[in-house]
Amino acid sequence: MDGFSHLDDSGRPVMVDVGGKDPTVREAMAEGIVIFPGKVFESLVKDRNPKGDVLRVAEVAGIMGAKKTSALVPLCHPVRLDHVSVSCELDPKGKLARITCTARARDVTGVEMEALTGVSVAALTLYDMCKGIDKGMVIEGIRLLSKSGGRSGEYRAEVGP
Amino acid sequence: MDGFSHLDDSGRPVMVDVGGKDPTVREAMAEGIVIFPGKVFESLVKDRNPKGDVLRVAEVAGIMGAKKTSALVPLCHPVRLDHVSVSCELDPKGKLARITCTARARDVTGVEMEALTGVSVAALTLYDMCKGIDKGMVIEGIRLLSKSGGRSGEYRAEVGP
Amino acid sequence: MDGFSHLDDSGRPVMVDVGGKDPTVREAMAEGIVIFPGKVFESLVKDRNPKGDVLRVAEVAGIMGAKKTSALVPLCHPVRLDHVSVSCELDPKGKLARITCTARARDVTGVEMEALTGVSVAALTLYDMCKGIDKGMVIEGIRLLSKSGGRSGEYRAEVGP
Amino acid sequence: MDGFSHLDDSGRPVMVDVGGKDPTVREAMAEGIVIFPGKVFESLVKDRNPKGDVLRVAEVAGIMGAKKTSALVPLCHPVRLDHVSVSCELDPKGKLARITCTARARDVTGVEMEALTGVSVAALTLYDMCKGIDKGMVIEGIRLLSKSGGRSGEYRAEVGP
Amino acid sequence: MDGFSHLDDSGRPVMVDVGGKDPTVREAMAEGIVIFPGKVFESLVKDRNPKGDVLRVAEVAGIMGAKKTSALVPLCHPVRLDHVSVSCELDPKGKLARITCTARARDVTGVEMEALTGVSVAALTLYDMCKGIDKGMVIEGIRLLSKSGGRSGEYRAEVGP
Amino acid sequence: MDGFSHLDDSGRPVMVDVGGKDPTVREAMAEGIVIFPGKVFESLVKDRNPKGDVLRVAEVAGIMGAKKTSALVPLCHPVRLDHVSVSCELDPKGKLARITCTARARDVTGVEMEALTGVSVAALTLYDMCKGIDKGMVIEGIRLLSKSGGRSGEYRAEVGP
Repeated sequence: MDGFSHLDDSGRPVMVDVGGKDPTVREAMAEGIVIFPGKVFESLVKDRNPKGDVLRVAEVAGIMGAKKTSALVPLCHPVRLDHVSVSCELDPKGKLARITCTARARDVTGVEMEALTGVSVAALTLYDMCKGIDKGMVIEGIRLLSKSGGRSGEYRAEVGP
Repeated sequence: MDGFSHLDDSGRPVMVDVGGKDPTVREAMAEGIVIFPGKVFESLVKDRNPKGDVLRVAEVAGIMGAKKTSALVPLCHPVRLDHVSVSCELDPKGKLARITCTARARDVTGVEMEALTGVSVAALTLYDMCKGIDKGMVIEGIRLLSKSGGRSGEYRAEVGP
Repeated sequence: MDGFSHLDDSGRPVMVDVGGKDPTVREAMAEGIVIFPGKVFESLVKDRNPKGDVLRVAEVAGIMGAKKTSALVPLCHPVRLDHVSVSCELDPKGKLARITCTARARDVTGVEMEALTGVSVAALTLYDMCKGIDKGMVIEGIRLLSKSGGRSGEYRAEVGP
Repeated sequence: MDGFSHLDDSGRPVMVDVGGKDPTVREAMAEGIVIFPGKVFESLVKDRNPKGDVLRVAEVAGIMGAKKTSALVPLCHPVRLDHVSVSCELDPKGKLARITCTARARDVTGVEMEALTGVSVAALTLYDMCKGIDKGMVIEGIRLLSKSGGRSGEYRAEVGP
Repeated sequence: MDGFSHLDDSGRPVMVDVGGKDPTVREAMAEGIVIFPGKVFESLVKDRNPKGDVLRVAEVAGIMGAKKTSALVPLCHPVRLDHVSVSCELDPKGKLARITCTARARDVTGVEMEALTGVSVAALTLYDMCKGIDKGMVIEGIRLLSKSGGRSGEYRAEVGP
Repeated sequence: MDGFSHLDDSGRPVMVDVGGKDPTVREAMAEGIVIFPGKVFESLVKDRNPKGDVLRVAEVAGIMGAKKTSALVPLCHPVRLDHVSVSCELDPKGKLARITCTARARDVTGVEMEALTGVSVAALTLYDMCKGIDKGMVIEGIRLLSKSGGRSGEYRAEVGP
């Protein structure tokens, strides 16, 4: 396909017809990172966040965000998700948090957008919870790591996590 | 402040009390970019997208996304927004789209999260509309460019857009 | 004003800036009608609907719909509504239901869209509850009856209800 | 059926049980029109709206609205939509916009309400974007054009578009 | 199972994978009661509420609430509900309202949360509509009465309603 | 007031007009408990939940739920909340979790419903996370503990927590 399936011939947006496709197991995994100013990262790893609660809140938000994907992305189909998980892990070397989201469904459309939305909402939540200390966080590298299932088959990002 | 205002002393999440603050004009501007594989970028600038409709859909989605911020980010206050705009522009040199979102409100809390959410949802929408061609888009550099108003005063990112 | 305030100079959608406006009492009243096939209207006025419950459900839905206006209409500002009421009344002469919605707020933007959305959602709900009998209902004449408050002042539809 | 399937014997609202029905391909097409005062229509066809952006925004809103149907209409079942498209076209003769929405799903309930909601939300969005010029728009003739699939079979409105 | 399926080994929240389960008919029935101060109960049974409208509004809200379950409960799967009904009945002996909600779906996850959410939202709505008279209502005994379908089979509360 | 302010004279639901009221600081505190079967409570206090994550997820859900109050309770006004906190604490004596929610706003309507909704959604979330072990949880005693601000003044439940 060399065009935009979400636009018809006159440039009108459309939720493409997936009615001819059979449900198969679809999985997608996405990632992103949040880079913290030094001061913020120190607070995250020190006693201000002893039980990792900041990360837990972001994970919950990411899962809830993934479920809202079709309400956020205009031409996305609603999907009955079988599974979503979001993981936020601190990387002391890079002073960053690495976020990954895995989504799974048996459906006629892929779940790439659900995985990417889960990562994005978790990243925004981390930003929100840290911005009282310093507003210099940057969200980077939100991308699809892999997907499987469906007509277009396997996809794997060229450079892994 | 050197801790997480969104966690109380026992690590419990909390929507911080802004009841003692007076409403002032708050503005925030955020940006982010979507980097496209060559094939996708060509389609975006060529005849497959003659009227820029892909970008227009993303801008509408970004504005609607900004209005949903407090439903997405768990500890964010609801804000009565006075203004939101989202702009998606193609940059042929970098084969990327630059997204900016400006949010404004007269309120007791800032609108940084609204601006960042507007950028994020617009970026996800661009991804969604282009993924039928190639899934290798990467969302980069989502960050706050500037904010004004409120107790913490002016903020300006060190390196501008 | 002779252009579209919701589009900027390059045709980009925008939630217009109302930051310079002062809150005043705004009221809007909208109406619409649902025309029923004879068979449906008979059921509505006869013993199948003795306590008017079909109309009550539509009124509840209309009020809840008015509260969702800014989530439905992309460039609409969120408004803190002071009052919403929806009334559905059967008119045996015309075999129709007349729906009116009144919305009120002290805000910097008008509440026309809230009143029109309340009418529309109530009308859709009536359609839904009657479509098992006959699908030939038509929703007609959704319009603003009057508005007051704000810079543009009074408005009154030329032909009243 | 000669009564209201959405009310039980005591007049209590109910989301009817569709558990005994088999999923089939359901399609529904609905239409509606927005009649513009002359001044507004001129702006829509002239240089103030050169790329039809006002219509595009309404189409996006209509698609997103169709996905929210079961959250708006109280007794409507959630449906996994396979396809939604909304088309807004200007008709210079009538000084109006004709809106059509097509919805499709393989499900146990019809998608009439989704098509009608898509039309309604697109119409409200047109109203919103034009109301700065003149508030005299009227939304007329929202109705089901056709449906297919399911137990009740084919439906076709007596007078076509 | 002796642990929390919604937490992974590191205590991270997760929407558990139901991808290996086959859809079966699931039903759940939940109940709860709202105990009213004497003055409120009198108003409910007397002429201030002649057609039971307060109860009807709560029933509509309960049905709509059940449809929002997966947006409210973070780790709940979205479910395509086949049927929801909510019933609110006044019990003059106990000066209370008994709320029951039945939910049904052919899906891979149970609908217990949908039934419990339907009861909770109906109870909150009763509280809201009565709180102008007296704020002393108490919501009690929200629990699952029974469920059927799925791997864990039948469940029946030890003490029936 | 001896009637239902949410019903007009003909029994029609209405979102009452608060337009004549001045914004004051409103606070409400509500509570509720979840009673656990012995087996579930043991898991909650033992090594299956070492960092209290089950309670943290419920607290996040409760805060997000409080923000959705006006979308759940039909005749509730939208409120711009200044503060929400939810606390879930295990009580080993009673084998229960005690949930409290505090909401605060400077507004023209009270925030009782927000506090009660926060408690309800946190309770439902606890139920959801524990139901894999045993479904016998019961949600009890959801009620308003206190409120202040507004015309009706102070309220304090007769029997404190």
